Amino acid sequence: MSNPRNRLNFSGGPGALPESVLQQLQTAIQCEPDTGLSLLGISHRSDWFAAVVQETEDNIRHLLGVDRDHHVLLLQGGATQQFSQIPMSLLRRDGPPADYLHTGYWSGKALPEARKEGPVRLLWSGAEHAFSRLPDDHELDYAADAPYLHYISNETVEGLQFHRLLGRDDVPRICDMSSDFLSRPIAADRYALIYAHAQKNIGPAGVTVVVLHAPLLDRLPAELPSFLDYRSQAAAHSNLNTPPVFAIYTVLLVTRWLRHDIGGLAKMAEINAGKAALLYRVLDEGADFYRPRAAVADRSQMNVVFNLPTPALERDFLASATAAGLSGLQGHRAIGGLRASLYNALTPDAVATLATLLHDFRRRH
Amino acid sequence: MSNPRNRLNFSGGPGALPESVLQQLQTAIQCEPDTGLSLLGISHRSDWFAAVVQETEDNIRHLLGVDRDHHVLLLQGGATQQFSQIPMSLLRRDGPPADYLHTGYWSGKALPEARKEGPVRLLWSGAEHAFSRLPDDHELDYAADAPYLHYISNETVEGLQFHRLLGRDDVPRICDMSSDFLSRPIAADRYALIYAHAQKNIGPAGVTVVVLHAPLLDRLPAELPSFLDYRSQAAAHSNLNTPPVFAIYTVLLVTRWLRHDIGGLAKMAEINAGKAALLYRVLDEGADFYRPRAAVADRSQMNVVFNLPTPALERDFLASATAAGLSGLQGHRAIGGLRASLYNALTPDAVATLATLLHDFRRRH
Repeated sequence: MSNPRNRLNFSGGPGALPESVLQQLQTAIQCEPDTGLSLLGISHRSDWFAAVVQETEDNIRHLLGVDRDHHVLLLQGGATQQFSQIPMSLLRRDGPPADYLHTGYWSGKALPEARKEGPVRLLWSGAEHAFSRLPDDHELDYAADAPYLHYISNETVEGLQFHRLLGRDDVPRICDMSSDFLSRPIAADRYALIYAHAQKNIGPAGVTVVVLHAPLLDRLPAELPSFLDYRSQAAAHSNLNTPPVFAIYTVLLVTRWLRHDIGGLAKMAEINAGKAALLYRVLDEGADFYRPRAAVADRSQMNVVFNLPTPALERDFLASATAAGLSGLQGHRAIGGLRASLYNALTPDAVATLATLLHDFRRRH
Repeated sequence: MSNPRNRLNFSGGPGALPESVLQQLQTAIQCEPDTGLSLLGISHRSDWFAAVVQETEDNIRHLLGVDRDHHVLLLQGGATQQFSQIPMSLLRRDGPPADYLHTGYWSGKALPEARKEGPVRLLWSGAEHAFSRLPDDHELDYAADAPYLHYISNETVEGLQFHRLLGRDDVPRICDMSSDFLSRPIAADRYALIYAHAQKNIGPAGVTVVVLHAPLLDRLPAELPSFLDYRSQAAAHSNLNTPPVFAIYTVLLVTRWLRHDIGGLAKMAEINAGKAALLYRVLDEGADFYRPRAAVADRSQMNVVFNLPTPALERDFLASATAAGLSGLQGHRAIGGLRASLYNALTPDAVATLATLLHDFRRRH
């Protein structure tokens, strides 16, 4: 049943999922064991699905170490919907601006959507550094009256990751964790809102997790479209209208795997750190040939982004990788180059295969 | 591989899908044949996925008999998102009201969302008839200056279906076809916008089809959140941000089945009409016992809603049905009773099984 190409999928997302999850999904497509029905034909109003949502919420709270003061929502629309839904919920046209960091491609997508809804202050931009590094603390002068601070924990395209918490505890801290959610322990109780689409670390495209500290709900305007109102989604346990049952069930299976098979986020982080360390070591050892893009202190453990001396060599490398059964290693269309994404489900063995390929390719050229 | 319970799933939605589609999905979860990758790990920016979207768009246009003046969008958020997105796009706070029909549970959900965005006129309401019938033409006095007319072609909960086109050709006609989309031929070129979530006739929960006549785009306000802007979604062929790849691929498989295996909407409608006729005949023959809810002229061919003499008998019938392997026959939680949903993928054989059960149950009581 196993597919060797899935094991070697280094795609930036949608990414690899655990083999055991794919096998359970194959079964459930035809006959979900508890109901005897196809997963795709089970009512979202059934007791079975209510239990799926409940366990998914509980798993995410348990993995993050937060209590029931934190709502776990399973929404549609991707992180892109959150780019708008957050300012629609929290910005006032005549109020103080929210603080936004511009650290790369994806935080750059959030900014114009926020500006459509209200005032925004650009707290820091990495544009003049070609988004090759993240800010130091002394470069960040947080406003005390901002309705919130918005930043991204991991820039998927450039391969930059914050290895610390930003902001101040008296301003709601909002973080897009789409590409490193549940990849390492975080101080989740210090965020007002965390959001992450599923298709990197926790499931397929089509569902987005929002972890929201309950007091934030008091700041919402009286009237919003229902589907964009965190209050109605929280009250309905994400079952306001028909939710994406297949995608949510997959998130359940992945969070079960994280909690029970892997053993939690500390263990997951240890595995992820080992994978990234191996890859960066090979790149650093070949520093005359491989050029990692990110400043060393800000290197992402999820997306290892690098260049070769010439675009022609990059094409040659991609061809060698494809021939060896590896896929998804081309860089994002916005910046080119190469990118190896090492999400939770990508195994250390797969990274070792890539490391050997990188080592051999350099020796041959 | 086949699962007999799927064949007998009469759920109001998510509903049954064709057996051949479930089998292709099982394969693709582990290894999609063209790419060699898990369907869940294929990039939405790949040539493969661009071809999936292209063929899905083409299939839907072909089945509906419309040309490339009609955009086919594959969006997230369900019909509920459309309840808001349509008025956000077309209502002006200081302009004339849109005409809305209130014919049952779901059109009743669309109304308050529209009222949040701008002026709305209630053209007709079935409330005083307990939503047991639809309006006649002489009851509908359409406004010539309305920015659009909004109605639902099939009320899933009450089992009411329009068997004619409403409105006037000089006012944009907007129709929620969530529960009868692609179940019969329609004059699709006479609608400005048709929308339908997938989970009745064409796929799993998590994707919504919008068929939009291009000139409507000229009426949109200058600035909208990107994910709610039909223009940006049309320009990006629904790939503005990561789309729900699994759900869209399933819609491709179902529209292929409709186009190539069934042979188009005229043939599908003939099959659906036969299924509904059989069931209503059994109910009418037992009119001393079974009470179909809808006025005869407005009976839905998708959702057959009926009562038994007492709630206790309804519970008995559901128990008999469950024992016989039939599922999903309980009525919607809003109104109770019984409901048999006969979506495209439900086979005539399955309806014959239910008809026999109904016939026998009446004889026994």
